[in-house]
Amino acid sequence: MKVVLLSGGGGGARFARGLDDVLPAGDLTVIGNVGDDVEILGLHVSPDLDSLLYTLAGLIDDERGWGRAGETWRALAAAGEWGGEDWFRLGDLDLGLHLVRTQRLREGASLSEVTAELVARRALATRILPATDDRVRTLVETSAGILPFQEWYVGRGHRDEVTGVSHDGAEDAGPAPGVVEALANAEAILLAPSNPYLSLGPILAVRGIRDAIVGRRVRSIAVSPLVGGRSVTGPLDRMLRRMAGGTTPEHVAGSYEGLIDALVIDEADAPAEAGVPLTVTQTLMRDRAGERRLAELVLEVACG
Amino acid sequence: MKVVLLSGGGGGARFARGLDDVLPAGDLTVIGNVGDDVEILGLHVSPDLDSLLYTLAGLIDDERGWGRAGETWRALAAAGEWGGEDWFRLGDLDLGLHLVRTQRLREGASLSEVTAELVARRALATRILPATDDRVRTLVETSAGILPFQEWYVGRGHRDEVTGVSHDGAEDAGPAPGVVEALANAEAILLAPSNPYLSLGPILAVRGIRDAIVGRRVRSIAVSPLVGGRSVTGPLDRMLRRMAGGTTPEHVAGSYEGLIDALVIDEADAPAEAGVPLTVTQTLMRDRAGERRLAELVLEVACG
Repeated sequence: MKVVLLSGGGGGARFARGLDDVLPAGDLTVIGNVGDDVEILGLHVSPDLDSLLYTLAGLIDDERGWGRAGETWRALAAAGEWGGEDWFRLGDLDLGLHLVRTQRLREGASLSEVTAELVARRALATRILPATDDRVRTLVETSAGILPFQEWYVGRGHRDEVTGVSHDGAEDAGPAPGVVEALANAEAILLAPSNPYLSLGPILAVRGIRDAIVGRRVRSIAVSPLVGGRSVTGPLDRMLRRMAGGTTPEHVAGSYEGLIDALVIDEADAPAEAGVPLTVTQTLMRDRAGERRLAELVLEVACG
Repeated sequence: MKVVLLSGGGGGARFARGLDDVLPAGDLTVIGNVGDDVEILGLHVSPDLDSLLYTLAGLIDDERGWGRAGETWRALAAAGEWGGEDWFRLGDLDLGLHLVRTQRLREGASLSEVTAELVARRALATRILPATDDRVRTLVETSAGILPFQEWYVGRGHRDEVTGVSHDGAEDAGPAPGVVEALANAEAILLAPSNPYLSLGPILAVRGIRDAIVGRRVRSIAVSPLVGGRSVTGPLDRMLRRMAGGTTPEHVAGSYEGLIDALVIDEADAPAEAGVPLTVTQTLMRDRAGERRLAELVLEVACG
């Protein structure tokens, strides 16, 4: 069953791992968010693609939820001592990836080409495609002004209330090679339990991707990232409250209007009405088995 | 006493530390070799400037003779696993410097500006100037063909016999800002116990620097890098034998023709004749005290 998943990092990447575990090898394509990408110390960093790569390759620090297990921070500390920026945490192991990707990009490779090389290097069964090879950058409108995503999220610890989100460059961005084809060939389209504004928003802001999903002939299922109206990590609950008026399944479904046929929600959010059929389960993935359980259930919902 | 030292890394950097120790703060300017500079993993690496910086800042690994003390190699190993080049050993601490320098260069800063920033960051009393801000790259002619310096030295472990050395770009290169002024204001010019072909050659290949030394009004003293006709490290003895016909003080002095007024040689190479006055001492710097002793002696010779 050919499946396309739209995903950010974090919980999205864990859900991707669940799907990767339960689907036949080669059946899963993940379209990853690049709106969080950032240039740090001259290196191109793609946090969500990295989380997908690290999670699927078994390298992720599952405790921390990002970056590599067994990480150290010596290069960054040294850079700081020489006057370099050190507010964005790049570990030593992590740097190896950023160095290789940045070098290839400077040589003229596209982000999707480099990503394919990295996936091949670890012989992953699942394809990872950046949503776009063009430059799309998430900007958040806050009480402190309009801020680039990482400056707000990491630099200021996402403490400023968000009143709006935009995706700079998205209007002119085209889907990366393979993205539209993957969506056209998919037997199911899934939206990971990621932040609708910050993680899936930049993917869906690429017109070619949104149009392909709006015009789908297969079912599209989203998994709500909320548990009992609260985000598992991150500021989504505060954002939804301010920008959509609440944190019920209906508010989540509203952010995917026209894009989904069903929403999977957590027991803690039931009962509810959301304008689309709801399936209730335990969405919190406590371990690998939990990831697989959620993946299997969502695939069942996708089969209608 | 304003002193200008021309130096590579290794023994040259240790001699620079000896001078830095015995001269009044601010009296020493070191002109460093950039012919070994190399781009690795997209980073601009200046091995000799780094050795000078690390040695004067107390960060050098004195055992190994290059790189930082307490170094680890995790980022490089990770880069290798992702398909990146890992033949040139860049440590994690070392990477911090390369990242900062490369970012500044890409922002448009010159190598001399970045070097000054790094020196200022560690509040060093001694100025370090790259010989040139222009691109000069040492090429070695070997039995295996003409090779970029680092490919031969590190990549192939300098095992191929050298029949010639050239400095690509040197003809069009100008001295970095401050270099000619430093030479004009110097009360003594010193040539470190570095490889005349590979370390001082690229400096002296910059016409403005060579002309300033040829036209000097102060004494210029070189320290022979040989002990008993052999290099302390590296392939100099083999190179001198093949390219100059031998490894006596006369052969060393011959590589500095017109550029020096005296040569300091090791006891193991005496007695000798070299066409310039010789001073005999223990040139091997076994420890910090040895570095200072050699520095003091060379300064005495410089005073005539």
